[in-house]
Amino acid sequence: MPVRHFVKYTFLQVDPAWRRLDDDQRNADKQEFMAACDDFAEGHLLRSFSLVGTRGDADLLLMTQAQNLDRIHEFHVVLTQSGLMKWCRIPYSYLAMTKPSEYSEESRLEVRPGHSKYLFVYPFVKTRAWYALDGDERWRIMQEHIKVGREFPSVDLDTSYSFGLDDQEFVVAFETDNPGDFLDLVQRLRTTESSSFTLRDTPTFTCIACSVERALGALDGAAMTLAGS
Amino acid sequence: MPVRHFVKYTFLQVDPAWRRLDDDQRNADKQEFMAACDDFAEGHLLRSFSLVGTRGDADLLLMTQAQNLDRIHEFHVVLTQSGLMKWCRIPYSYLAMTKPSEYSEESRLEVRPGHSKYLFVYPFVKTRAWYALDGDERWRIMQEHIKVGREFPSVDLDTSYSFGLDDQEFVVAFETDNPGDFLDLVQRLRTTESSSFTLRDTPTFTCIACSVERALGALDGAAMTLAGS
Amino acid sequence: MPVRHFVKYTFLQVDPAWRRLDDDQRNADKQEFMAACDDFAEGHLLRSFSLVGTRGDADLLLMTQAQNLDRIHEFHVVLTQSGLMKWCRIPYSYLAMTKPSEYSEESRLEVRPGHSKYLFVYPFVKTRAWYALDGDERWRIMQEHIKVGREFPSVDLDTSYSFGLDDQEFVVAFETDNPGDFLDLVQRLRTTESSSFTLRDTPTFTCIACSVERALGALDGAAMTLAGS
Amino acid sequence: MPVRHFVKYTFLQVDPAWRRLDDDQRNADKQEFMAACDDFAEGHLLRSFSLVGTRGDADLLLMTQAQNLDRIHEFHVVLTQSGLMKWCRIPYSYLAMTKPSEYSEESRLEVRPGHSKYLFVYPFVKTRAWYALDGDERWRIMQEHIKVGREFPSVDLDTSYSFGLDDQEFVVAFETDNPGDFLDLVQRLRTTESSSFTLRDTPTFTCIACSVERALGALDGAAMTLAGS
Amino acid sequence: MPVRHFVKYTFLQVDPAWRRLDDDQRNADKQEFMAACDDFAEGHLLRSFSLVGTRGDADLLLMTQAQNLDRIHEFHVVLTQSGLMKWCRIPYSYLAMTKPSEYSEESRLEVRPGHSKYLFVYPFVKTRAWYALDGDERWRIMQEHIKVGREFPSVDLDTSYSFGLDDQEFVVAFETDNPGDFLDLVQRLRTTESSSFTLRDTPTFTCIACSVERALGALDGAAMTLAGS
Repeated sequence: MPVRHFVKYTFLQVDPAWRRLDDDQRNADKQEFMAACDDFAEGHLLRSFSLVGTRGDADLLLMTQAQNLDRIHEFHVVLTQSGLMKWCRIPYSYLAMTKPSEYSEESRLEVRPGHSKYLFVYPFVKTRAWYALDGDERWRIMQEHIKVGREFPSVDLDTSYSFGLDDQEFVVAFETDNPGDFLDLVQRLRTTESSSFTLRDTPTFTCIACSVERALGALDGAAMTLAGS
Repeated sequence: MPVRHFVKYTFLQVDPAWRRLDDDQRNADKQEFMAACDDFAEGHLLRSFSLVGTRGDADLLLMTQAQNLDRIHEFHVVLTQSGLMKWCRIPYSYLAMTKPSEYSEESRLEVRPGHSKYLFVYPFVKTRAWYALDGDERWRIMQEHIKVGREFPSVDLDTSYSFGLDDQEFVVAFETDNPGDFLDLVQRLRTTESSSFTLRDTPTFTCIACSVERALGALDGAAMTLAGS
Repeated sequence: MPVRHFVKYTFLQVDPAWRRLDDDQRNADKQEFMAACDDFAEGHLLRSFSLVGTRGDADLLLMTQAQNLDRIHEFHVVLTQSGLMKWCRIPYSYLAMTKPSEYSEESRLEVRPGHSKYLFVYPFVKTRAWYALDGDERWRIMQEHIKVGREFPSVDLDTSYSFGLDDQEFVVAFETDNPGDFLDLVQRLRTTESSSFTLRDTPTFTCIACSVERALGALDGAAMTLAGS
Repeated sequence: MPVRHFVKYTFLQVDPAWRRLDDDQRNADKQEFMAACDDFAEGHLLRSFSLVGTRGDADLLLMTQAQNLDRIHEFHVVLTQSGLMKWCRIPYSYLAMTKPSEYSEESRLEVRPGHSKYLFVYPFVKTRAWYALDGDERWRIMQEHIKVGREFPSVDLDTSYSFGLDDQEFVVAFETDNPGDFLDLVQRLRTTESSSFTLRDTPTFTCIACSVERALGALDGAAMTLAGS
Repeated sequence: MPVRHFVKYTFLQVDPAWRRLDDDQRNADKQEFMAACDDFAEGHLLRSFSLVGTRGDADLLLMTQAQNLDRIHEFHVVLTQSGLMKWCRIPYSYLAMTKPSEYSEESRLEVRPGHSKYLFVYPFVKTRAWYALDGDERWRIMQEHIKVGREFPSVDLDTSYSFGLDDQEFVVAFETDNPGDFLDLVQRLRTTESSSFTLRDTPTFTCIACSVERALGALDGAAMTLAGS
């Protein structure tokens, strides 16, 4: 039987002072961080992204998934042992769970493994006026929203739920290889009825899918070398 | 006779630079912090939680309770003597008091000792439109709210009051072993009438119940060893 | 003839790094700070409070009063010479003046010397809708507000005025030995008509009255010793 | 022919760590800063103010004026060479231009040289509802505003314009020797019709007029001595 | 066939501590930064601006353009290798794409190479009420807006689109040699109907066009010398 999963978005930003350390130290710091990710990824979904060049307030995103929240906690505890986390802040952090959608049969209880070049993520809060509508009305409005989405088949969507767990109601994640298509979709959705019930949909993160190794290399422009080599 | 108590939520975040100190120093810093907690816990309720992996802006929560506010002040003064507080900020802090509820006979004058795996806390402010309703109307609306809550028996609630003492009106704390149930309850409550009178219910903290020792260990991924051993 | 006074609320927060200095240095830093306070207090009202344990973003409050703003400026210049101010920020600062109230004959042109255990302070801004009411209407509404206040005789009030001098319109300061009474009063006031004209009444500070010496001791949990002894 | 001028308000805050440097270093840092101001002041208006004791988030204000924006840029480049700017942030910065007023013949194309003890400055934004009124209606409302201002002859006003240049629409600067008069004027203006069209008028800075030398001395409570003496 | 381009606005602010380094170190740090810019500029548009003297929260703006987002990412990765980025934050960052306008035939699929002395940039978000208008109504309102713009021929406009890519909907960039004209245009636009549909148009940056070399020199008031010379 499919079960609900916890999904965690952890955005990291490195202190510029870390870039002043010598190459060997930075390489070792990254190796320890990558080892923690590799361990977690053996039994769980872990995806990594770089935000270098797309945001100024975050450098790297780890998206992790587990059935038990304690696994996500333990992974982050192990991360704190790595040299890199002695120089990082977590400027944004979103905790969510998967859940069947009320409005669509396409929703999933696990987030999709990576398959696109770019991920677009934002925390989402609806107005209370939305929740005051009756269920049929909400269903009708969402069908228009879903229909517009289907006009952009190059864009995929994963929604997870944060009610009571974190500051937002949803974490919305779109994926595509064509950012221009996604931009056009979002602009097109502004004129749908559902759009008027949006209270907050920022910050909006453009994330470049890549391996943990490459995402770490983007922090200081230095390719990683094997420890001890 | 039961008396009202002060309840204090103190969220700590450690400077990443602390993780660069050597193991012995960090162990000593944690020992001093734990000793202060142990002393206070002899005569008062003290509960500890880890937020590593659930938030980016807080690492550890101490919830303390006392009949006299000066005891809570003195406990925090003693904390400042510990090595750990030479490297910590308090990014969030909520001061409240217990008080009988106008709407429910289940309210308490002491917060509950820990009994669940997870605690969900948020500061809560209602709109002024709520307070402009007459008392009977508020009572009717709250009964619907309470009725929905009872449909989720795995979730317990402790509300404390902050009017005039701090920036929020209430501090709301839910406990459960099943975060998914709590998420469903909060989403369900969005469609009740009372929900439209919420002005602010963030930040929302997901807190993992654990001993002070374990919460401290989660700060740097290092288990504590006995001082001098 | 009574004259109007300037009232200044200066909230300090010490850098955690200061707690890493050795005992003698910290003691000297506090002595210099206390000497500046003692000098000012010879000719002016100066009251001190600790916020350790009640807030996370401020540690100590100095409330000072003078007929001439330059005296308050000069006092803060002297403070910058003290060792402590080499490690402190001023996260909150409120400048105000006394003024006779339009609504009550009990207002004063000097703030009260300390007489209660706790002080509750917040900056206050009313909605512009309030000021669009005619004067009689405002007077009627304030009488209800004042009447509710009189039901809580254990709570005293000092209001000062900041229009044009600082970001708020008023600085409101309540005093009492019984925080529970004050909490009940503020909750009770929410249902008065005047409450609907509140635009902002946060942050709200719970402040523990104590000598400068004790407030300084609470910063690092170390009692002060005489300089040179 | 009178021409429009650029007006720049640059608020500085010194890092508390600067106060830990030895006296000679701090004196030299201030000398370099003062020399840059003296050079600019030879051909342009430059006024200086201290905010020590009136604000917690800014210590010193420089108000500068030039016909060409490049002169203001170059002055700030020279400032960065001074020792003091190695330890300062600019927490607030307002760029504006002079412009004839639509509503008053008293407006000027140059800001006034200093003549009062105190300056009160705030960035100002009107609601869009204001701009939707027709011009006659705006004129009528402003006449009431101006009439109230004239009841306080001890208070002078300089308004400059920031549309498109900075985050605010206007920078409003009042001057007086009597802060109490100004406070009374601002409170009185709250009840005028124009007041309901204010969107933002904070932060509001109380600034004490003084020479650059005195404003620098207020940063660390040390009077400057001549370089080399 | 013309294709859409990515446009990136990267605002940098240097840590004041960098100014404490010796001249040779700062010169080398700037040389590395300039070399990265020169490399990128060989195949792409790169424009540089100084904000010293116009803002307090940003010192330098790089505007870059590429058909492929990965090129912009890679450029920023190379920047992190430069000495300067070991001491810089990116306080503001805007990612956008070009797109034909619905309302004007003058829009472009590439941003204009620099030709004016000053650039005025702001992120722009419209109200949801705007998007609820039907298309003809939006077209009519925009024609008035465009007509007013044409009354100021000394001011040019480049609009790019950020829907879904970043926190704003548009990045609006005006260019002119005459800031006073631009100020008058923006003030004039306040009274148009389109203005009432603005939700956010701040922060607004006044940027001084100059070479990378001059923009770097403005950071510490030191002209660059050739590496090794």
